[in-house]
Amino acid sequence: KMWEFRSMSFWRAVFAEFFATMFFVFFGLGSAFRWAPGPINILQVALGFGLAIATLVQCVGHISGAHINPAVTFAFLIGSQMSLFRALFYIAAQMLGAVAGAAVLYGVTPPTIRGNLALNTLHPGVSLGQGTTVEIFLTLQYVLCVFATYDERRNGRMGSAAIAIGFSYTLGHLFGIYYTGAGMNPARSFAPAALSRNFVNHWVYWVGPMIGGALGGLVYDFILFPRMRGLSERLAILKGARPPEPEGQTEPRGDPIELKTQSL
Amino acid sequence: KMWEFRSMSFWRAVFAEFFATMFFVFFGLGSAFRWAPGPINILQVALGFGLAIATLVQCVGHISGAHINPAVTFAFLIGSQMSLFRALFYIAAQMLGAVAGAAVLYGVTPPTIRGNLALNTLHPGVSLGQGTTVEIFLTLQYVLCVFATYDERRNGRMGSAAIAIGFSYTLGHLFGIYYTGAGMNPARSFAPAALSRNFVNHWVYWVGPMIGGALGGLVYDFILFPRMRGLSERLAILKGARPPEPEGQTEPRGDPIELKTQSL
Amino acid sequence: KMWEFRSMSFWRAVFAEFFATMFFVFFGLGSAFRWAPGPINILQVALGFGLAIATLVQCVGHISGAHINPAVTFAFLIGSQMSLFRALFYIAAQMLGAVAGAAVLYGVTPPTIRGNLALNTLHPGVSLGQGTTVEIFLTLQYVLCVFATYDERRNGRMGSAAIAIGFSYTLGHLFGIYYTGAGMNPARSFAPAALSRNFVNHWVYWVGPMIGGALGGLVYDFILFPRMRGLSERLAILKGARPPEPEGQTEPRGDPIELKTQSL
Amino acid sequence: KMWEFRSMSFWRAVFAEFFATMFFVFFGLGSAFRWAPGPINILQVALGFGLAIATLVQCVGHISGAHINPAVTFAFLIGSQMSLFRALFYIAAQMLGAVAGAAVLYGVTPPTIRGNLALNTLHPGVSLGQGTTVEIFLTLQYVLCVFATYDERRNGRMGSAAIAIGFSYTLGHLFGIYYTGAGMNPARSFAPAALSRNFVNHWVYWVGPMIGGALGGLVYDFILFPRMRGLSERLAILKGARPPEPEGQTEPRGDPIELKTQSL
Repeated sequence: KMWEFRSMSFWRAVFAEFFATMFFVFFGLGSAFRWAPGPINILQVALGFGLAIATLVQCVGHISGAHINPAVTFAFLIGSQMSLFRALFYIAAQMLGAVAGAAVLYGVTPPTIRGNLALNTLHPGVSLGQGTTVEIFLTLQYVLCVFATYDERRNGRMGSAAIAIGFSYTLGHLFGIYYTGAGMNPARSFAPAALSRNFVNHWVYWVGPMIGGALGGLVYDFILFPRMRGLSERLAILKGARPPEPEGQTEPRGDPIELKTQSL
Repeated sequence: KMWEFRSMSFWRAVFAEFFATMFFVFFGLGSAFRWAPGPINILQVALGFGLAIATLVQCVGHISGAHINPAVTFAFLIGSQMSLFRALFYIAAQMLGAVAGAAVLYGVTPPTIRGNLALNTLHPGVSLGQGTTVEIFLTLQYVLCVFATYDERRNGRMGSAAIAIGFSYTLGHLFGIYYTGAGMNPARSFAPAALSRNFVNHWVYWVGPMIGGALGGLVYDFILFPRMRGLSERLAILKGARPPEPEGQTEPRGDPIELKTQSL
Repeated sequence: KMWEFRSMSFWRAVFAEFFATMFFVFFGLGSAFRWAPGPINILQVALGFGLAIATLVQCVGHISGAHINPAVTFAFLIGSQMSLFRALFYIAAQMLGAVAGAAVLYGVTPPTIRGNLALNTLHPGVSLGQGTTVEIFLTLQYVLCVFATYDERRNGRMGSAAIAIGFSYTLGHLFGIYYTGAGMNPARSFAPAALSRNFVNHWVYWVGPMIGGALGGLVYDFILFPRMRGLSERLAILKGARPPEPEGQTEPRGDPIELKTQSL
Repeated sequence: KMWEFRSMSFWRAVFAEFFATMFFVFFGLGSAFRWAPGPINILQVALGFGLAIATLVQCVGHISGAHINPAVTFAFLIGSQMSLFRALFYIAAQMLGAVAGAAVLYGVTPPTIRGNLALNTLHPGVSLGQGTTVEIFLTLQYVLCVFATYDERRNGRMGSAAIAIGFSYTLGHLFGIYYTGAGMNPARSFAPAALSRNFVNHWVYWVGPMIGGALGGLVYDFILFPRMRGLSERLAILKGARPPEPEGQTEPRGDPIELKTQSL
């Protein structure tokens, strides 16, 4: 486990998660503010969140994998694609980044506009069970898309990882904004709740995305496109016992986006 | 024929069609609900359906080919690109998946919102013949785009298969929502009809897409970019008599998206 | 010259131009109709035209180059990238296809909706000179993008040719719909004029795109990224005297989208 | 230094910056005009600017790198990726191009529509400090995306450079139009200010983007994905003392988009 702690690329990845989540929350929440009267433009908000994800996956995907989301990190952990040690640091960085992004947004936005900072809330008439189910479905499709896009066994007409993942996030918002505000990401939901001290039904935005993310990863890795890995190998990855490749290489270890040069 | 039945990758593909159609119908129909008064935002609905297709092609394209649509499966069957046995299981999985997705959607949506679950209907003033013709054109361009994108003989600046196919689906909706609600997919049209027990003019949403899909496949495979295949070869594929490649390979047989490594 | 006339791939390319322009005009004009009162959604119309181009470039780009537009064919002719013989057949096919597409659209659309079939007109207050200048700029950027995207000398992070070209077409409409209706394509402008027998200011939609297209091609090929070709070689291409490659190859001659396998 | 001055590809790159910035300002500002009463469609304006960037990166990215923006050029200079000599000519070309584009736009647009040519202004209630901070964040994410996309050390599922950069520009506008009008580019902000002789708070649109751009480049090159370059090498690049490759090659020197053939 200790080698990760001593690796520069590990700390760069943790910083990348902090940085990307800060910018994601800043741009996502800020795109959802209402500056003018009249109905909100759902498509505009959905593209705000989706293009924020697309841009940040493009920026740091090759550095940390661009999880930007505790539910995604949890799914990669469950799928034995990262160590527990790395997962804990990622999630901590994401939570700190989200609060930092929301705090900067709070500071630059006029009080009449910022309201409750685009807090996720259930639509009147949507029950807790319905809201949790919706969050499960939203996050399930998103994590499935992340796993399919990052799958290093594929080679083909994949196009841009960033656009594919960003559009999947947009899809979740096009459906989910009315139901639950489309959480899909506990860090994104936590930041406005913390700053506006409003945790009503907040557990929905943890339970739903975590279950949905884990299910998405499991469905992909065990049913749709199974990985042939034994239990001992999975445990070794989880514990971080598999040593990383040397530091000097172009693409840092654990980066699931990039194809290796030789496979091209 | 029996080898397909015994192949794990066959059953994974059938499950992928079920799963993807369930999610497609859930997200597509759900994006079309009206939560606020005022005119519907056609672009938002069209992108909801299109990004659902894009995301699900990204997720399961390398597993089943991501037909998600009986009209697409019918076109591949007509074009001798899959066995009759496989086609029947695909279509059954799609129909079941569509009903499952609509049922979950029914369960999570407040009754005042769900209405008739975004049932496809003809616009007043559009005749049955006009509606069927529109459905033929919508599906023809879509299946043509699927065939051109999945054509393993092409190599070049193709970009992402998922985005290309998703945008073609969006195009069909931008044009067709006003005319017919833009069916383009008998499974998508069937699910709300079954749940709301409303089959008025339902045949339009089978006849139009099936004719359009078959025409799209035939125009591409016989006129625009002909495949040099004899009748006996076509019959062998149809009957499933051509044995698959060994199981252990990276990309499962029958996957039309992925380029083989050596062709890069 | 005679070899082109005897080549199957030549006639397939001509048919592809007819077919693609028919579908382009059908979907583009149809996406611009007003079914509901209230202001028109410019973004929706611009994406309707742009995604129609993207889809059809994806469908027939490897067959004919997917010009779908006399201004594009004229630019390729001026830039010595095709024979005069081929250019004349392409333009004839495009004009026929456009009228066919508009005629089908006329047939399937209720009379109260179809109006003048989305005829291009100058906005009140926009003069003939201003309108022509706008059409020049709209088409110039579009043809420049087509030339840069189809440039077989480039190799790199190009992504999808279809999306790049489709988004450039969308850009032209986002700017130009208010000024001139955004012609950018004499075939698209001609079809509704012919069917509604309204040729007021129609020359603007020929002069502007033809000048803009030619300028776009010349700026790219002679200034921005010059091609080292002598006058005799240019004349030989123009006359069609350079013989084509054998028929059996994967990518037909004259297809500017696809990279050759060996260059990968 | 003198070799750059004598190189044709240098002058083509400078012309490309002039040309692309002229078209960018023409299309971007023109897409932001209000032709109809009612609230402005933010998404339409944001896509107008973003697709203009995407199209022009596609057109001239392989010729000049498609900076189209003094803040981007400044960031590449700070990051030791271009010579001071080249940077000065780029910025001069961008400023001239922006004024030229705005002037043409002024000429083709009816006076009642063109207003102050989409001048960037602070929203009432947004302070100078808040506006500057917002401009820093908008430009920081954009330049970070440009650096990550142009990074020649990456090889993988990058997709289109043009689309990735264009969507990042759209993201900045989706967030920033309400706050500051979304400058992100001193040349774009300068042109309407010069033509309407209105320089109120104009410094915000220079200080913000320049700081944001420099920070974006430094964060990427020194923290997220460090380049191993010594001070002497950096100074040599800055002074332009590193000689260019021979003229005849396919991709001109200094083009950061394209992968070299051998690296594929």
